Amino acid sequence: MILDLINICKKGGEIIKDNFDKKLDVNKKSTIDLVTDVDYFVEKVVKEELNKQFPSIEIIAEESALDNIEKEKPVFYLDPIDGTTNFVHGFPFVAVSLAYYVKNSAEIGMVYNPIMEELFTAEKSKGAFLNGKAIKVSSTGKMINSLIGTGFPYSIVESENNEIIIQRLRNILENSRGVRRAGSAALDLCYTAKGVFDGYYESGLNPWDVAAGKIILEEAGGCVSSLGGGEYDFSESWIVGSNGLIHDALINKINIS
Amino acid sequence: MILDLINICKKGGEIIKDNFDKKLDVNKKSTIDLVTDVDYFVEKVVKEELNKQFPSIEIIAEESALDNIEKEKPVFYLDPIDGTTNFVHGFPFVAVSLAYYVKNSAEIGMVYNPIMEELFTAEKSKGAFLNGKAIKVSSTGKMINSLIGTGFPYSIVESENNEIIIQRLRNILENSRGVRRAGSAALDLCYTAKGVFDGYYESGLNPWDVAAGKIILEEAGGCVSSLGGGEYDFSESWIVGSNGLIHDALINKINIS
Repeated sequence: MILDLINICKKGGEIIKDNFDKKLDVNKKSTIDLVTDVDYFVEKVVKEELNKQFPSIEIIAEESALDNIEKEKPVFYLDPIDGTTNFVHGFPFVAVSLAYYVKNSAEIGMVYNPIMEELFTAEKSKGAFLNGKAIKVSSTGKMINSLIGTGFPYSIVESENNEIIIQRLRNILENSRGVRRAGSAALDLCYTAKGVFDGYYESGLNPWDVAAGKIILEEAGGCVSSLGGGEYDFSESWIVGSNGLIHDALINKINIS
Repeated sequence: MILDLINICKKGGEIIKDNFDKKLDVNKKSTIDLVTDVDYFVEKVVKEELNKQFPSIEIIAEESALDNIEKEKPVFYLDPIDGTTNFVHGFPFVAVSLAYYVKNSAEIGMVYNPIMEELFTAEKSKGAFLNGKAIKVSSTGKMINSLIGTGFPYSIVESENNEIIIQRLRNILENSRGVRRAGSAALDLCYTAKGVFDGYYESGLNPWDVAAGKIILEEAGGCVSSLGGGEYDFSESWIVGSNGLIHDALINKINIS
């Protein structure tokens, strides 16, 4: 199954690559939440292929998500372009994110960045890979030696209640080697899996943003949790991922009150 | 002269590429300001080549900077690895940054990222180029439609006076499409030159971080200034770069009091 899914993702990635660095019509789902015709087209092509090869499996996809999916059944989570703002501006962190879940548990995850030619994959209990080569999380044990990936919710431009986001960021900036804000949650999780980032946190995400990255990070030896430290499920506001070693310290630094 | 300098930069870039993704000994200039043997080695190789080919021109380089250089004379500004933290962690935004100034005015600038194979170059009054192809700034006219690059000073982990940095960041986050924090000032300026970012700002930088990126952005049609809007010189605490169109708005949003 995983090879079929890789081929389908690569088909989507080709479309992204062909349209990267082009002037595109941009529509807005909210003030800064963008969508382009390429998002819709990648989603259409990937969904058609999934439906053809796996007709019985439901698909939860960013640009056509339905609320009434029965998630106990097998399901695909698809983000046709994770990092649409990057795609619109030409910043090279963009990816197709695809995951296969059964009974709310990840079986397969893949994140494909066609611009940088990076394909991250993982299958349950079989490890995580970048372009076929095994990857693992970093061995950084101290928060002050950590590089932390993060992101901000689109609602930050409309909300008057951003104090907690800002103060959490400040506490990370003051207690780490720095943050990187690359603009793709899926790739942030993969870069934590690869050991580039030692940790990652963000709020305001959707299942299709993180479903694939979560299993990739876990299969690379990392840890994903809610901000309370418990199991992360898609209804949580905040997600925290790390190499495991700094996980408690990272939660502690984020979770100021 | 520019072709000779490109060849010299590429020689430095090869060393960076050969050592990327390797485990390296890391030393600390301060708590989070890192330096590796590769920084020193790239600097040594590049300086030797510059001294051989341009023996009369002084060099101001990150890892061996002297205070007593007479800047009215022709001078090279060299950062052997801009983005050392990225280099140590394997995040692909790293670059050799080299600029040639005469009487405090830039004649040539180049920023070479050997990992992503991106060579940005500019000569005074001759435009800016990426891998030989002309680049120009974005045409974004509204702050709320802008993607903004930024960075944070190393001193943020030691300082107790970070409120202004945090509040400025907050105001940008609340009034733009978002920020990107990629971890290389030289490349941030080049990504603004290329039209990926619409603007960029940062504090706590040194001449070798921005000397090349500044002329590249200006030759791409962009604008570089102090936070007051006047001419940026290397003694300024804050630098602001943009496509020109959003420059006043960007300064206005940064410059809250």
